[in-house]
Amino acid sequence: MPETKKFKYLFGINSPKDLRQIPLSELPTVCNEVREFMIDTITKTGGHFGAGLGMVELTVAMHYVYETPEDKLIYDVGHQGYPHKILTGRRDTLHTIRQKGGLSGFLKPSESEYDAFGAGHASTSISAALGIATARDIKKEDFNLVAIIGDGSMTGGLAFEAMNNAGVQKRDMTVILNDNNMSIDANVSAFSNYFNEVFASSTVQSIRQNLWEMTGKLDTLGDRIRRLAGRLEDGMKAFITPGALFEAFGFKYFGPINGHNVIKLVKMLRLIKDIKGPVFLHIMTQKGKGYAPAENDSHNLHAIGKIDKETGKSMSAAATKPLYQDVFGNAMVELCRRDPNLVAITAAMCEGTGLDILEKAMPDRVIDVGIAEGHAVTYAAGLAIKGITPVVAIYSSFLQRAYDSIIHDVALQNLKVVFAIDRAGVVGADGPTHHGVFDISYLRPIPRQIIAAPKDEQELRDMLYSAVYLYPNAPIAIRYPRGYGKGVELGEMKQILLGKSETLRKGSDVAILAFGTVNSEAMKATALLEEAGISAELINARFAKPLDTAMIDDVCSRFDTIITIEEGQKIGGFGAGVIEYISGTTSKPNILTIGIDDTFVEHGAQDELLADIGLDAKGIFAKILDFLRKDNYSIYKELENTAQFL
Amino acid sequence: MPETKKFKYLFGINSPKDLRQIPLSELPTVCNEVREFMIDTITKTGGHFGAGLGMVELTVAMHYVYETPEDKLIYDVGHQGYPHKILTGRRDTLHTIRQKGGLSGFLKPSESEYDAFGAGHASTSISAALGIATARDIKKEDFNLVAIIGDGSMTGGLAFEAMNNAGVQKRDMTVILNDNNMSIDANVSAFSNYFNEVFASSTVQSIRQNLWEMTGKLDTLGDRIRRLAGRLEDGMKAFITPGALFEAFGFKYFGPINGHNVIKLVKMLRLIKDIKGPVFLHIMTQKGKGYAPAENDSHNLHAIGKIDKETGKSMSAAATKPLYQDVFGNAMVELCRRDPNLVAITAAMCEGTGLDILEKAMPDRVIDVGIAEGHAVTYAAGLAIKGITPVVAIYSSFLQRAYDSIIHDVALQNLKVVFAIDRAGVVGADGPTHHGVFDISYLRPIPRQIIAAPKDEQELRDMLYSAVYLYPNAPIAIRYPRGYGKGVELGEMKQILLGKSETLRKGSDVAILAFGTVNSEAMKATALLEEAGISAELINARFAKPLDTAMIDDVCSRFDTIITIEEGQKIGGFGAGVIEYISGTTSKPNILTIGIDDTFVEHGAQDELLADIGLDAKGIFAKILDFLRKDNYSIYKELENTAQFL
Repeated sequence: MPETKKFKYLFGINSPKDLRQIPLSELPTVCNEVREFMIDTITKTGGHFGAGLGMVELTVAMHYVYETPEDKLIYDVGHQGYPHKILTGRRDTLHTIRQKGGLSGFLKPSESEYDAFGAGHASTSISAALGIATARDIKKEDFNLVAIIGDGSMTGGLAFEAMNNAGVQKRDMTVILNDNNMSIDANVSAFSNYFNEVFASSTVQSIRQNLWEMTGKLDTLGDRIRRLAGRLEDGMKAFITPGALFEAFGFKYFGPINGHNVIKLVKMLRLIKDIKGPVFLHIMTQKGKGYAPAENDSHNLHAIGKIDKETGKSMSAAATKPLYQDVFGNAMVELCRRDPNLVAITAAMCEGTGLDILEKAMPDRVIDVGIAEGHAVTYAAGLAIKGITPVVAIYSSFLQRAYDSIIHDVALQNLKVVFAIDRAGVVGADGPTHHGVFDISYLRPIPRQIIAAPKDEQELRDMLYSAVYLYPNAPIAIRYPRGYGKGVELGEMKQILLGKSETLRKGSDVAILAFGTVNSEAMKATALLEEAGISAELINARFAKPLDTAMIDDVCSRFDTIITIEEGQKIGGFGAGVIEYISGTTSKPNILTIGIDDTFVEHGAQDELLADIGLDAKGIFAKILDFLRKDNYSIYKELENTAQFL
Repeated sequence: MPETKKFKYLFGINSPKDLRQIPLSELPTVCNEVREFMIDTITKTGGHFGAGLGMVELTVAMHYVYETPEDKLIYDVGHQGYPHKILTGRRDTLHTIRQKGGLSGFLKPSESEYDAFGAGHASTSISAALGIATARDIKKEDFNLVAIIGDGSMTGGLAFEAMNNAGVQKRDMTVILNDNNMSIDANVSAFSNYFNEVFASSTVQSIRQNLWEMTGKLDTLGDRIRRLAGRLEDGMKAFITPGALFEAFGFKYFGPINGHNVIKLVKMLRLIKDIKGPVFLHIMTQKGKGYAPAENDSHNLHAIGKIDKETGKSMSAAATKPLYQDVFGNAMVELCRRDPNLVAITAAMCEGTGLDILEKAMPDRVIDVGIAEGHAVTYAAGLAIKGITPVVAIYSSFLQRAYDSIIHDVALQNLKVVFAIDRAGVVGADGPTHHGVFDISYLRPIPRQIIAAPKDEQELRDMLYSAVYLYPNAPIAIRYPRGYGKGVELGEMKQILLGKSETLRKGSDVAILAFGTVNSEAMKATALLEEAGISAELINARFAKPLDTAMIDDVCSRFDTIITIEEGQKIGGFGAGVIEYISGTTSKPNILTIGIDDTFVEHGAQDELLADIGLDAKGIFAKILDFLRKDNYSIYKELENTAQFL
């Protein structure tokens, strides 16, 4: 815990009601304290960093002006919500953030009544806020409502759809654009460029000045011109601020104003609070504000582990194994060097997906379309139809945004688009909004879809190579987890035949079909089983679609018990596919599917969560043992007298 | 076939190359002929109507100016593509449109080299065009590229994402906005309102005039003012056309121009063809142009069956059974009358979903958010979190657009949003882009998700009532098909317990678990089976999630053979769920899942397609019989000497 005595106000603020007792003139001090406390805490515990630091003044101002929780603040993404958590009763538990059983790294209504709507993915806040505003109006309730959104999230189609609809519905609501010109990756937005160009432009600045001078002069030309000038001025006002855009959507536009001047923010919020209809406030902020290492490197300090508070350097030991994302990025460099018709596409996740490596080596081969997953995929289909091979590098949970584009634009047209699905499986601290556990299930029903998962980082390389050069024109998904590889030696990229599994270990009692990197834990489980007298065969399935049906037929002919393992929802997943296939044959093995049960997985460390849901070696061992016992199966009879299994 | 002799040019145009030989001055005649031919043909065969009629002049002008197929025309949705088909070698097969084996009702690259990219769903064209432009530039090819999009589709987030990205990438491409201020339902778009207001405004018209006058006068004030005036003029130009918006996206804006003046269109296209960078041309058209019944009732004539050419009246016999959509709409009226906290949401499909009935009765209970499916669902979640019960009425294939919103905004937050999923199953003439065959599979893995399907229209009423009042806070899907109900008597809405099936027919040899309206064909199949000496029990499963596991346990204890039937992809579907469940028990029945194989279903009449894929009574009967024979199962042994089964 940070020392409380260095804080004049912070430890007296147990809810926004306390904040609202503090004189306006003291708010800059409060902001400093919130920022200092956040830096103290997060450098020790890790967490999202830059976004929250940029939001301190706005957060203080909002809770000062609005009567939260009756008035509703609806955040977007939510990783900028740490100052909000500090002010809303979660100061003393902030150090538990993103840890198992601790605070969520995002906004979560079940955590606090001040979290008006859950967040995690980008671009939802305006849409949710409009829904809440509609409910308020239907119920004839009376409260204020603010949606906060970053400039990065404004490129998402969902934000646009909501802005457009809000302008039509004309309900009382405020949208605050927190414009730091910096989404997770450098912002790729015509909107954003437009803002910047408009403001940077000395032409505009001089037009603005000249306009005032000129309208002064025009005064002498008589009434008619004077009236015209007034109207012209309105027109020019719309032109010389970015507001024209938002006014076109039916919003009353204010700004841009400095988002780090808390007193000015309070005054502005008081001004707009009672304006009827949709209001748009545009504030400019700096990501990482107030913490020099983050200001200078907002990228690396977007989300941090434990770091040295003075230097901002990571205090984690250097990893000896490569990240999957880096293996992917390097493999893309190799492939692009050979192949002029290969490109990578990212939706504002260039670093996270490892494409920063390709971008450094061959910048023209990486296309960052901004936070716009649907477009990323339909755009890729456009590339593919003209003979370019696009590799869409995307997080599993974000690919959910592009589901229709995969079906409608890629699969239906027989186009080859490779999906490098990062963050597949349990992602850890980011929790349920970010776990990539649905992809196998939602991709399997798509005709022509190929779904592969490597057992390790070399196999990722092999699958990527094979997808680009060997597999047919179809959506081809290669899913792999967040985090570090197995540390295997990396060699040449080799061909993996489509739908072909490999046997990793021979056995005679049970067959284990494992899909993806969980093979290594499965292998450890086979050793535990061996100790327990059970001889397990382990097969690296490699493909959830098409399944290696020859292998399954063979396994069914040799084993009475088949176990499937995957890091994803069991419903409709890889194991379900195995069951579906076997159900269509004459075989009747006992089948146990190991995966994620039909619930959402909470947040926590990746290893902890995997252990909790039984996807580590011990869990796999225990589940198999339990299954053998339950199933009144021949092996069980041999086992039941063996004390070690009790 | 229409008489060829009344056409001067049309039957000489076998490809756009022929069109390009005709003198410019004669293009109005060509347009008249295209329109006349289309009216002749489509009033006889049925098809999408209004959109194509509005596009005649633009289509002729584009093929006249651009060197198709080397230059690429990328349509959006594609139902406006009939004039394009007429001009690109498909004139003589137009009468087969939307029929099995005939032309597709949408754009389809496999049908013609002139169809540069497939279409069917809204808002894809700019994204796909940008992909094709990128491929062109990577391959250093040289061709022109035009994306056509309607004002309705512009409300879709995908279009916005693509516009935004196109402005950044600055590739040579043209976007043509076909603005008829009329998507399938009356347009709900702030954008569109903005256009109209700007043009209707006499203030703007007079500012424009005055501006010219004034800049003339300012000339006398010396050089400095003259330079300023030039810049002001640019500024005002941006203001006094809707172009400001599109210029903000980085496009060069032209328009709006009359989209029914083909000569002016040709001149404009020639002008913009060689302009570098992204160009935006805004044209105004009238849906149904040139056919009085459609001009006056563009709504009903959006897509037609066979109609009387003179009156525009339908020539189909009046139906004696109600449409599912109308049953739904009427049920919503009943429920909304009792419940002030119930609202319906549609994404520009008010008529298609039957919500027009509710809108007429209680206009404030229908919220049309425009073509914006993701927003529709996240918005619904916002309503739900404040205690309103939203019913999102949406077509199955369009719900694919909102997949992440269902998971992230509804399910994860335990919110009750009812999804009335219309057009679930095979939709018929609209074909593979519109078949609603994936929903069971993609919804099943979502925790808390409820998936129900009624056997008939009264059960639809019962399920809707139960979803609103009895089921827990969760995403609740009720799926039902396009078209007519079973003709059952409609009575009070009754309670259906969550996850509770009903037995429709007792039997002793095989158990059939049918999900949804396919129960009626399954019932007919049981009669055929009975004749063949097989006693089939038929259970209306009602729920794909949660399954009625007590019923399945019971069935497994009584039958060796279990058949599941559903109108959806088999992979991950209802039957797959039954298999998954049974696999976790000690039962080992033979299970046959009947549904749609792992392919896309083509277009054709709904009945024809259902028969083709074996989802009619005969097909079900044949599949069950085949399964019993194959499975070397006890009944088969009794059957095998029965000649009628050979």
